[in-house]
Formats: sequence, structure tokens, C-alpha cells
Amino acid sequence: MKSDFNIPARPHAFPMDIEHCALLIIDMQNDFLMEDGGCPRLLGLSLADLAPVRAIIPRISRVLDWARASGLTIIFTREAVEPDLSDLTLSKDIRYKNAGYPVGSPGPMGRLLVKGEFGTQIIEEFVPEESDIVIDKPAQSVFIGTNLEALLKEKGISHLLFTGVTTQCCILATYRQGNDLGFFGLLLEDCCAAFSPQEHAAAVDVIISEGGAVGWSTTSEQLITSAESC
Amino acid sequence: MKSDFNIPARPHAFPMDIEHCALLIIDMQNDFLMEDGGCPRLLGLSLADLAPVRAIIPRISRVLDWARASGLTIIFTREAVEPDLSDLTLSKDIRYKNAGYPVGSPGPMGRLLVKGEFGTQIIEEFVPEESDIVIDKPAQSVFIGTNLEALLKEKGISHLLFTGVTTQCCILATYRQGNDLGFFGLLLEDCCAAFSPQEHAAAVDVIISEGGAVGWSTTSEQLITSAESC
Repeated sequence: MKSDFNIPARPHAFPMDIEHCALLIIDMQNDFLMEDGGCPRLLGLSLADLAPVRAIIPRISRVLDWARASGLTIIFTREAVEPDLSDLTLSKDIRYKNAGYPVGSPGPMGRLLVKGEFGTQIIEEFVPEESDIVIDKPAQSVFIGTNLEALLKEKGISHLLFTGVTTQCCILATYRQGNDLGFFGLLLEDCCAAFSPQEHAAAVDVIISEGGAVGWSTTSEQLITSAESC
Repeated sequence: MKSDFNIPARPHAFPMDIEHCALLIIDMQNDFLMEDGGCPRLLGLSLADLAPVRAIIPRISRVLDWARASGLTIIFTREAVEPDLSDLTLSKDIRYKNAGYPVGSPGPMGRLLVKGEFGTQIIEEFVPEESDIVIDKPAQSVFIGTNLEALLKEKGISHLLFTGVTTQCCILATYRQGNDLGFFGLLLEDCCAAFSPQEHAAAVDVIISEGGAVGWSTTSEQLITSAESC
């Protein structure tokens, strides 16, 4: 198998380097994916409403199996602030109150988006292994308030695969900052979702915009098929 | 006049603090706005194709006049890398080649997106004053590879108004990182534009998504009317 190969992607082929690549699985946590999780509960979403975000679970599982077999670094993230809310900015505090899900508000899965609560644990379908990296992040972009950039540079990682929720919120924020910092980011669009399919589509449109100046998007099928045919 | 007031915005009112606010005018430079500028020329865009990005010039002028009269800090940015391309990442180099406008390529306005060339000068409709800040930035987000965050903190600025080009590229990248860093960002959607109105719309959709968790968007008219009625 070659370590460098092109993956069909929009709007241009993605120059893959599998030996220097990490898989990001962003915020696949109970507070976003479970019917009793903080966000669905506070937004009044039913299990049917969660279909778009839950549909990506088996697809990410397949990519995760492939990534483990291919030796990629695996990084799980969780949106979670300190219990004393010391790393919750006033801007985010107000925005999440506006959205109807105040950070730190109590619920059956604990305080919303707070470290150590059941709601901020990764959904049971994914079990991080000892060699995986798990990052708690206070902001939407995983690069803010964490050691992600230093960690990637230390490991010599230049290429990032993006999966998780929600596409236009934490995925897009991290994707944009990653490419801007010089990483090669590839969105796996069938492994990302939002509560609203329209909001997911807007984020994909941004990533493939301006003829490729922003980034690259493909599917998990294209990724795995391309890797296997090398 | 009160310094704190609400501005009607989508999806929620924006909590303005005019005493701690800066106006960002992003990348209104010859390479993006002029028919002979690097991007329009390489993309084969006519003056008619530039109508969306040129239509915002008088609107930004009006906001700039208001902001000067109101004592806001004014920050102009230019997308421009060092002449030796030392701050051009390989990721950006490839993306901009994919998009059809290689950074550093020669043209009638000088080397594309390179510091000191005529193409990276701010369009003649805007004349920065001595007290204004002008930032050259190597990435899409103004926060990357510049002193913007430190400068805003030093000046006690917490609120940012966003204008310029293009909405889904450099505006959105900067907007997302700003809010994530704890700033209060307000997009002035009629003072931002992209070459493609659909790409502009996708970026606005992202900013007003998820019930307000991402950000706020309004118009220059709403901003100025709200400020004048305080």
C-alpha cells in the first residue's frame, strides 16, 4: 500500500498522506446524541429528530475500524468546560443560553457540557482504546484552549480526517482553523451531521466553496476504496 | 447615547458595547475588488461578475463614517504573505493553486497576494487614517499569524463588527475564531460579499445556525439606526 495517494473529493482530489494522518471524531457525546442528552432534551427533539446525527454512528465505526487497521492516530473530542465554568467565556455563555441549552444547567445526565458528567461522556458505541487521545475542549474549535496543535506537531501529523457533530458548529470551526494553521483537512461528509440537514449542507457548501481555496470534502466510501486500491 | 444597547439581529438581538468595539474591514484589496486584480483576472471575472463584491463598498463607507464618529477602533486587513513566501503553508499553496489563483503568481498588479504589491493594497475608496490599524495576514483567519488577539485584549476590545470579502472564506474563518476566543462578533451581512451570492448565503446560514450557538448577523441599517436611537 502506498502512503501517499489521491482521494476523489470535492472540489478537487485530496492529496492523502496516510502515514501522517489523524482521524478526528468530534463531540460524539451523550449530550448531543441521546434523546435524554442535554441538547435534544432542552430543544424538545424526539428520537426521530435525532435520525440525522445518529445515522453517522455506523459510518464512523467503519472509518474507525479502517483507521485503526491502517495505524492512524485516533482523536476523540468532547465539548466540556470545567465544573466551576472558569473556561466558559461570556460570549459562549450568552450564545448557548440564546440557543436554549445553557451550559452548566442541570438535567438527568448531569450538568450540560460540563467535564465529568455522564452527558459529556462519549456515546457507548465508541470505546476509546488506551493509545487513543481524548480531548476535552471548552470552545467549538478543538484548537482553542487545548494542546491539539502542539500534539499534532509533536506526532508529525499533517493530515486530518473530520467526523462527528455538528457539521456547521464544532466541525466547521475546527476544520477552518486546521487548514488555516497549515494542516490538510478532509471532511468525511457522510460521517458528519447536524440536527438540521440544511445547516449541515451549508457547512459543506462553505468547505467546497471558492473553487477549492477553503478545503476538501469526500465520503467514507471514497476514502476507504481509494486506500484499498493503492 | 448609551454605550450598551441591543441591536436587532438574527437569530437573537446582539448585546452591543460600543465603548469596547472595533470595526473590522477585511481584505478590501485590489486583488479581490478590481477587474485587473489577481483573483478576478485569473478567474476570468468581468466587471459585471464583480457586482456583488463591489456593491458593499458604499455600505462599508457609511459604516466606517459612523464608526469613526462613534470612536470605534478601525482595523483594516489585507491577505498578503511575505515576498519569499516563507509564511505560505503548503496546504494553502495547494488550495489556492486548485482554486486557480496561485499565491505569488505574477500579474499586472504584481505578485498575487504578496506584501507590498499593488494588488494587496486597500482599494482607493478607503483611506486608512493614522490611528487606524492595518494588518497583513498570511492565513484566512485574521487571528492566525498576526498579533490581532493580543492587540484587541490590550485595547480592551470585546466586540467586533465584521465587514469585507469574502463572506465564506476570510470573514467566516475570522468570525468563528473570534467568537470561539470569547469575543462578541456581529456580522454586517450587507457589508460582506462573495464572488458567488450562494456562497455568501451559506456562510450567513452557518452564522445564524443552531438557534444562536454560533453567532449573530444583522445589517448596517439596523446597526446605525439602533445606535442613533439610544
